[in-house]
Amino acid sequence: KMLGRVLCTVLFAGTLPSLVEVSQGHISVVLLGATGDLAKKYLWQGLFDLYMDQVSSGHSFTFHGAALTALEPGQRLMFDVLKKLACPPDESPNRCAVLKDQFLKLSQYHQLKTAENYTALNREIETLLRQEGLKEAGRIFYFSVPPFAYTEIARHINSSCRPPPGAWLRVVLEKPFGHDLESAQQLAAELASFFREEEMYRVDHYLGKQAVAHILPFRDQNRQFLDPIWNRHHVERVEIVLKETVDAKGRTSFYEQYGVIRDVLQNHLTEALMFLTMELPANVSRAEEVLRCKLQAFQSLRGLEKKSAVLGQYQAYASQVQEELQKAEDYISTTPTFAGVLIHSDSLRWEGVPFLLTSGKALDERVGYVRVLFKNRAYCTQSETLRDAGHSQCKAKQIIFYIGHGALNAPAVLVSRNLFRPIMPEGSWREAVGPSDLHIFGQPLSDYYVYSPVKERDAYSILISNIYRGRKDFFITTENLLASWRFWTPLLNSVSRQPLRLYPGGVENQHLLDFEMVGGEVAFTLAEPVELLNPNRLMPSDYRTIQSKFRQSPLVSAWSEDLISQLASDIEKTASRTVAHSGQFHLALSGGSSPVVLFQRLARHHYAFPWRHTHIWLVDERCVPLTDAESNFFSLHNHLLQSVRVPYFNVHPMPVHLNQRLCVEEDRGTEMYAKEIVALVANASFDLVLLGVGTDGHTASLFPQSENGLEGAQTVVLTESPVKPHQRMSLSLPLINRARQVFVLVLGKGKHDITTLLSRVGHQPRKWPVSGVSPSSGQLVWYVDYEALLG
Amino acid sequence: KMLGRVLCTVLFAGTLPSLVEVSQGHISVVLLGATGDLAKKYLWQGLFDLYMDQVSSGHSFTFHGAALTALEPGQRLMFDVLKKLACPPDESPNRCAVLKDQFLKLSQYHQLKTAENYTALNREIETLLRQEGLKEAGRIFYFSVPPFAYTEIARHINSSCRPPPGAWLRVVLEKPFGHDLESAQQLAAELASFFREEEMYRVDHYLGKQAVAHILPFRDQNRQFLDPIWNRHHVERVEIVLKETVDAKGRTSFYEQYGVIRDVLQNHLTEALMFLTMELPANVSRAEEVLRCKLQAFQSLRGLEKKSAVLGQYQAYASQVQEELQKAEDYISTTPTFAGVLIHSDSLRWEGVPFLLTSGKALDERVGYVRVLFKNRAYCTQSETLRDAGHSQCKAKQIIFYIGHGALNAPAVLVSRNLFRPIMPEGSWREAVGPSDLHIFGQPLSDYYVYSPVKERDAYSILISNIYRGRKDFFITTENLLASWRFWTPLLNSVSRQPLRLYPGGVENQHLLDFEMVGGEVAFTLAEPVELLNPNRLMPSDYRTIQSKFRQSPLVSAWSEDLISQLASDIEKTASRTVAHSGQFHLALSGGSSPVVLFQRLARHHYAFPWRHTHIWLVDERCVPLTDAESNFFSLHNHLLQSVRVPYFNVHPMPVHLNQRLCVEEDRGTEMYAKEIVALVANASFDLVLLGVGTDGHTASLFPQSENGLEGAQTVVLTESPVKPHQRMSLSLPLINRARQVFVLVLGKGKHDITTLLSRVGHQPRKWPVSGVSPSSGQLVWYVDYEALLG
Repeated sequence: KMLGRVLCTVLFAGTLPSLVEVSQGHISVVLLGATGDLAKKYLWQGLFDLYMDQVSSGHSFTFHGAALTALEPGQRLMFDVLKKLACPPDESPNRCAVLKDQFLKLSQYHQLKTAENYTALNREIETLLRQEGLKEAGRIFYFSVPPFAYTEIARHINSSCRPPPGAWLRVVLEKPFGHDLESAQQLAAELASFFREEEMYRVDHYLGKQAVAHILPFRDQNRQFLDPIWNRHHVERVEIVLKETVDAKGRTSFYEQYGVIRDVLQNHLTEALMFLTMELPANVSRAEEVLRCKLQAFQSLRGLEKKSAVLGQYQAYASQVQEELQKAEDYISTTPTFAGVLIHSDSLRWEGVPFLLTSGKALDERVGYVRVLFKNRAYCTQSETLRDAGHSQCKAKQIIFYIGHGALNAPAVLVSRNLFRPIMPEGSWREAVGPSDLHIFGQPLSDYYVYSPVKERDAYSILISNIYRGRKDFFITTENLLASWRFWTPLLNSVSRQPLRLYPGGVENQHLLDFEMVGGEVAFTLAEPVELLNPNRLMPSDYRTIQSKFRQSPLVSAWSEDLISQLASDIEKTASRTVAHSGQFHLALSGGSSPVVLFQRLARHHYAFPWRHTHIWLVDERCVPLTDAESNFFSLHNHLLQSVRVPYFNVHPMPVHLNQRLCVEEDRGTEMYAKEIVALVANASFDLVLLGVGTDGHTASLFPQSENGLEGAQTVVLTESPVKPHQRMSLSLPLINRARQVFVLVLGKGKHDITTLLSRVGHQPRKWPVSGVSPSSGQLVWYVDYEALLG
Repeated sequence: KMLGRVLCTVLFAGTLPSLVEVSQGHISVVLLGATGDLAKKYLWQGLFDLYMDQVSSGHSFTFHGAALTALEPGQRLMFDVLKKLACPPDESPNRCAVLKDQFLKLSQYHQLKTAENYTALNREIETLLRQEGLKEAGRIFYFSVPPFAYTEIARHINSSCRPPPGAWLRVVLEKPFGHDLESAQQLAAELASFFREEEMYRVDHYLGKQAVAHILPFRDQNRQFLDPIWNRHHVERVEIVLKETVDAKGRTSFYEQYGVIRDVLQNHLTEALMFLTMELPANVSRAEEVLRCKLQAFQSLRGLEKKSAVLGQYQAYASQVQEELQKAEDYISTTPTFAGVLIHSDSLRWEGVPFLLTSGKALDERVGYVRVLFKNRAYCTQSETLRDAGHSQCKAKQIIFYIGHGALNAPAVLVSRNLFRPIMPEGSWREAVGPSDLHIFGQPLSDYYVYSPVKERDAYSILISNIYRGRKDFFITTENLLASWRFWTPLLNSVSRQPLRLYPGGVENQHLLDFEMVGGEVAFTLAEPVELLNPNRLMPSDYRTIQSKFRQSPLVSAWSEDLISQLASDIEKTASRTVAHSGQFHLALSGGSSPVVLFQRLARHHYAFPWRHTHIWLVDERCVPLTDAESNFFSLHNHLLQSVRVPYFNVHPMPVHLNQRLCVEEDRGTEMYAKEIVALVANASFDLVLLGVGTDGHTASLFPQSENGLEGAQTVVLTESPVKPHQRMSLSLPLINRARQVFVLVLGKGKHDITTLLSRVGHQPRKWPVSGVSPSSGQLVWYVDYEALLG
């Protein structure tokens, strides 16, 4: 009854301008967690902003605060919050008072605890609508609750609170959306059993920050200027940064589980990264186009490795955790509070451009920005004094999306005046003038075109308005979310026990957290010794690379990542030495999954490798076309050859595909390969052969009991594999044993049993072909990781 | 008699310290052009410096000034110069007076005009030596004369003035050493008929500038710091600059023939470039090692094109030339007085690093420097205020060899303090402190370690001392000289009639001469319209690219460089369109010399070309191994494939080399290629076939009267060429005519006759195979340059 009257007042109140004639239907907004921090600080105000904006839209509204608290105290708590709602400064006090009064009357508190509570809420909404004769437009359920409560609430909404057909349901979810790929997938799967994808609005409030939200429109509206320069030929680097001065005090129970990467990088900074790197759809206002391009941008990201990140922890964190979480005094937290991560995209547009994502707590200033720095391609002939005057092409060129705080203390878009004068939407951004002595990224503010929002708006207010407008591109879809976790989870795993650099906090950090890029990796600029947080006396990187013996030959052992980098270095050293000596280097490589990491490492970190003088041979091949995904050569090509410059003539795939047929004896592919080897490789003695080992003891494609290749004069043979594809071509054991060096790479727990076995057996190639590897006048080295060696 | 007395004085004068016991022999120095400008300004002082330094070395000296002037006035002129010789400030006035007196007594003027004069000089030297009982150590002849006089003088010296066996001859030559490759070769050949290579000392006085001379020692002494960073991964750009404020007034008769590239870039700046880019020999004091490495560095330079340079001329130059050379008022000089040139080295070390060489007259300041700017790889986490304090890694990192003048007004070596503290030879360089408010290349002087010479020495003084010491690495060998001309001559030819940007001179030049790098080319930053000097109403770039018809098909015609860039663009457009439409692009390319320029253009300027989706086929091939220099594929690989990223699988060389045999019918290479085409190319219809035309009208490897390939069902054929290598493989005419597009490229005067003929004849493939090119449902376009079209 009360509500009915209010609705009438709203629809016909003479004091309100421009009322529409026909009702567009009713929207019920249910805010779950109505008395929580987020609701108090942002959400109610956002809902009130929505109401103020849309009061004349033809939609009618009711607002339902909900929590576990009982009705009476809950009501009181909620209305204490609502009383503090504010109108924008340009609103007339009269209208503000009226609107606020109406909003309060349209708002109601509900205890939502049991199934019955939800059924009752649903009934109330239905009753009201019937009484007022209103058509239902839709319902918004805003989850401002801890993630453990999601499933329960979702189940209730799905079973009891769905609007009738024809009206929409929108559930708004707040992070965290999982903790890693697996948990995110699990959560997503659960939610998917209650809601359809288009019903879910996952909030990343960064997408509501005005400067972040303007990245795509800016790229769209300034296509004419950006098209030629928005690429690797012109962009030198991109920095995406969120620095905080506060620390985690009082929030360690949350923070200790998440850390800075999950808290800031995986979501906020990654979203900004996507807006920068994604291809621009023809129409940026079509949500599905935007989302598709964003997903494609994720596909192009190069995988992160341990050394893609530098991590730190402010010194007081440990004691805060001990105190707040009642931990013992020797408890060591491995949660990073600072991270700098170097990201590369392998898209044609961005290949080679460093994207630096940085965030941390207890830093010297609070600031957020996205900075695109362009290459300096100009030479200015006149002297420096003259050069500094005006907007010379020799000055730095940058575009900055200034998210807030920092020196400017407001959102802004800055474009170097020697780049172009950007097109900005007049209604929402205006040119601004700042203090002329202010320097931003090394340049006086007067060197930039500076734009600031006509009206500063809170991110939640913007996002709530976008929920209302159904703009799904302002939210994180399930695919988007999982793509992000898929990208970040390997890094999170690989650094989980890595030492952190301790920093004092604030300005005292000095240069302690500065870091540098070297060959696709990052490292702190100030070298050790500085204080490190070492969580574990026996942690992986504390193991020295073990140098020992295995089967009477040298053994190199380490955790797999370190092992691979050692192996790659050793191969490069061998290559350089051999080329210096004989002008060329004949390298025979095996297929399979283990070498893939090695190939990638060689491609990305060994710029000095003498590729132009290296011949690449295959140790073995599957009888499939070379362009088949199962082909060893195809994998080698994808992971190594296409990134380096081996001359075409020096690449020697096995001829498994002759006359459009696969490994047909009479096509004599094995003879052809054998002849090629004899023609090019002195004494048919490869400089280096890289082998692997199968769980059955096979190596190359020489399987136990093989009729060919274990002995005899034939150097290249056709063999049969017990697993598909069965037909193989392989170098023979006698040929392998002519090599000057043989490296055998063994990785992973799955190889522990065969490794143990091999450590005990002698020369029995018919049973375990790899035991027959024994270069007659060359050297054999085993590269076995700890998992294979120690289980 | 007089000389005899003087020599005794020198050897036994009690006032002189540390005399050696045994004479090392006598050195006669003959300065030809003894009364000329260079001699007056630098050479006599340099000889006096040598004398002062070496008076106690055990060598005795005589100095012979020579010129065409008669004895009496010549003597007077010369002694007027000698009277002004000065001692260094740290020399005692007494010793100075004695030494100067001795030097004057040891010096004599000779008229050297006729053969008799030379014979007489030789006799005098012999007589003196005999009289004094001195062993002859050697003779230095310093040519400070115009180049036209070289041959005559050289002949006389060779025939009359050679020292006896056991003593050396050193002739010192001053630039210019020719005007282009041809003239330099000619001059070198002439000189070689008189002197052995080791007898010639070609002076580039830049090599005597203290900062330039220290580049190699600096690299050598600081190997530990430079080894990791002296390469493309760390160096962002290098600037080698010589700016002058003076103009060419009074010297136009010389300047008008040379211009800034020949005057400064070809010699001084190129030498500095070589010192920077060459590999460092193990021992930098071994001249022959240094010279070998320098020559290798020349081999790695990428060839220059028209757009590698920006050129200008100061406005007053034209009237100066008209006045001084008595030219008509409408005389237009095309001599550049300003040049900015972008150079790339294709060595592994420097690939991709831009080297900018710049010089000009009438600029805003006088300064010379070599600046190596390193990449900024650091991210500094603290705010800018903090960042600027101390020597943060975020500040610019550079090494500067400051040659002289400019803000420092002295030679210096500067190294950013955040790089390393360099090792400098204590005896010759010392740490210096400059005014702290001075900024050099954007940074306060206090950001650098600054070193200046302990003793500033004139370049000629240093060079004369190096002639005496026989240090050939301080001079330009013939090979070195020719390598430099070989590098610069193509640019000089291609820009000889290019428009020059006019500049007012001095500070008024403002930003007019600033230039930018874009995709391997340079262009002035300020766009047209600015005033241009257009030497010729009908100059090449004034022709619009002609679009017309040839043999009923579209014709594109232009000067060859423009034609090639048009063709490359058209191929890229076709490729992009085709890939967008069907996902892949099948391109068949011809061999021969014409396409080489096209391949290079595609490799260097078309970064957006969809190479990953392009298949490369051969139109024809010579029956030689693919790695043979005669192979079409080898040339294609060298000039295109090794610089772009075409997947291995998409490259389809013709199988001319099967079973280690060449084009043997029974190896069925043609069938194999035909099958491959059918398997991969839809309808065996290539997207684009690029053809050429021979002077006999052949195209592909289809020659007149060929038995195969002009008609019939066979798509790939073996043919016979009238020239070696005779055996060829080729696509057939019917297959070519199935293509969707065919471009025919015809370049050069040599093709004018066949072009004319083809414009008249009809379809007669047996006589002129190219006349049979007529795609049945595709498009044919002719790309014919003006030389082929117009003769």
